Amino acid sequence: MSKFININGKIVGEEEAKISVFDRGFLFGDSIYEVTYSNSRTFVFLEEHLDRLWNSARLIGMDLQIDREELIDRLISTAKASNLDETYARVIVTRGESDLSIGTADFRQNVVIYIKPNIQYSSELYDKGLHLSLVSRVRNDKRSLDPNAKSGNYLNNILALQEAKLVGADDAVMANQAGEVTEGTTFNIWIVKNGKVMTPHPTSGLLKGITRAKVIDLCIANKFDFEERAITTQELIDADEIFITSSTKGIMPVYKLDSKIYAESSAQRPVTEALRKCYIELIQNHINSGTHSY
Amino acid sequence: MSKFININGKIVGEEEAKISVFDRGFLFGDSIYEVTYSNSRTFVFLEEHLDRLWNSARLIGMDLQIDREELIDRLISTAKASNLDETYARVIVTRGESDLSIGTADFRQNVVIYIKPNIQYSSELYDKGLHLSLVSRVRNDKRSLDPNAKSGNYLNNILALQEAKLVGADDAVMANQAGEVTEGTTFNIWIVKNGKVMTPHPTSGLLKGITRAKVIDLCIANKFDFEERAITTQELIDADEIFITSSTKGIMPVYKLDSKIYAESSAQRPVTEALRKCYIELIQNHINSGTHSY
Repeated sequence: MSKFININGKIVGEEEAKISVFDRGFLFGDSIYEVTYSNSRTFVFLEEHLDRLWNSARLIGMDLQIDREELIDRLISTAKASNLDETYARVIVTRGESDLSIGTADFRQNVVIYIKPNIQYSSELYDKGLHLSLVSRVRNDKRSLDPNAKSGNYLNNILALQEAKLVGADDAVMANQAGEVTEGTTFNIWIVKNGKVMTPHPTSGLLKGITRAKVIDLCIANKFDFEERAITTQELIDADEIFITSSTKGIMPVYKLDSKIYAESSAQRPVTEALRKCYIELIQNHINSGTHSY
Repeated sequence: MSKFININGKIVGEEEAKISVFDRGFLFGDSIYEVTYSNSRTFVFLEEHLDRLWNSARLIGMDLQIDREELIDRLISTAKASNLDETYARVIVTRGESDLSIGTADFRQNVVIYIKPNIQYSSELYDKGLHLSLVSRVRNDKRSLDPNAKSGNYLNNILALQEAKLVGADDAVMANQAGEVTEGTTFNIWIVKNGKVMTPHPTSGLLKGITRAKVIDLCIANKFDFEERAITTQELIDADEIFITSSTKGIMPVYKLDSKIYAESSAQRPVTEALRKCYIELIQNHINSGTHSY
């Protein structure tokens, strides 16, 4: 058994892990989630992920019924049960089971935790980087569904990824309706131009990623020339270096955007690599601190 | 047992009706659906609903694995098993079960059919009408997620409904980013002004409802002054009569939009009532035809 599922406090195997078809997560994507991971039996930036889970809940008008401490206990006990040192962890909280109408009320929320082995990306991939496509699919507008709510409504991103795969890319980056770069399907995006590190401003409509926040802090602490501002799609194309950030990937370089090649090995992207070294050190220090270990 | 669920061809009761937590409908809202009903043991406009299900699948890049005839058989057999004369029927097709990454592939799709008693709206409600609110939540943009895909991504509508409920309304109507009226949370919207019947054009970003199409046909056949065009929120407010259309509600009048009262009884909305009579006759004729009976 390589996947351990915790449903409302009970740990079950993959085959038994089922949810009612009346669950609103299944019916309407009426749910929120977080993804994190553990390294050397320590969950990375768990407090930040839980802060964001509570923020996602607020953005969709859900008053979370589970205590924060109880949720941490379930995560830790499920990770322990898995006996895995390196786990991928996903938490989904749904608004609960209701009839088939969309009206919300104080249903009993369902909490599902997924723990499985974390497959780390290879050092070859970090050296080579990803091939992204700037797709025509427009990122959800904040006034329709704020990308800061990590919710069970993921079709916008799924359709963007489909479009990227069609042209042979690994993944997609999306613009907003004004032609400003927003984010990727599961990651934030960054550019380097003339030595300056830049990432789209949240007003462009994007998730304020946890790794993104950590890398902003690193830029400031290490005196990188840094700016958070609206970035046009043309500026993305014209960048010297491109990289992405996500909890599971950390800082991952981009070697190609559509047909344009940026840097095919780490030696060709000095700023990205300098930041990556800082980030790896940050993660190692965090793990050594032993917070949320099991 | 009042609810009958058919999961991949097997009819089960409400308690046993469960789906894997790895189903992409649960994980990502990566699913499509239709809602219809039966009256006097006849499914109403079933062919149109199936056409639209196939269209929704196309819009999210899903190649439906189930045959149309097989799906009809399952609907009919589940309705028969329920022994209900008047049913509410919902069909959900998910992209199937996958790992926790968002990439799509040729997974084995899950088909879930829900059959339950259809609670018809009272004649008092049809006489009084609904209280709607024009909410600030903006309808999903076509370029992000086309409202013509009836999908498991329903948070945009859920949040609109929450907003309407907060001000004491029954339901919500949404505009697009240009301030054009689009549709309600689960229905299309119509106005009457100086005797002319109007409904928003699909270019404003809305689901081309089946009842909407039938009412357009009725307008034309019965020589109502009719136009399908972009309608501003101000035009909605300034309307003489407002009504909505949906498969389960048919033509339902609106007596109040936010604080403005339009007509508090059917006598005060002559055009809506004339159309409603035509629509009731149309439905009766359809039922009498006995297509898709059980």
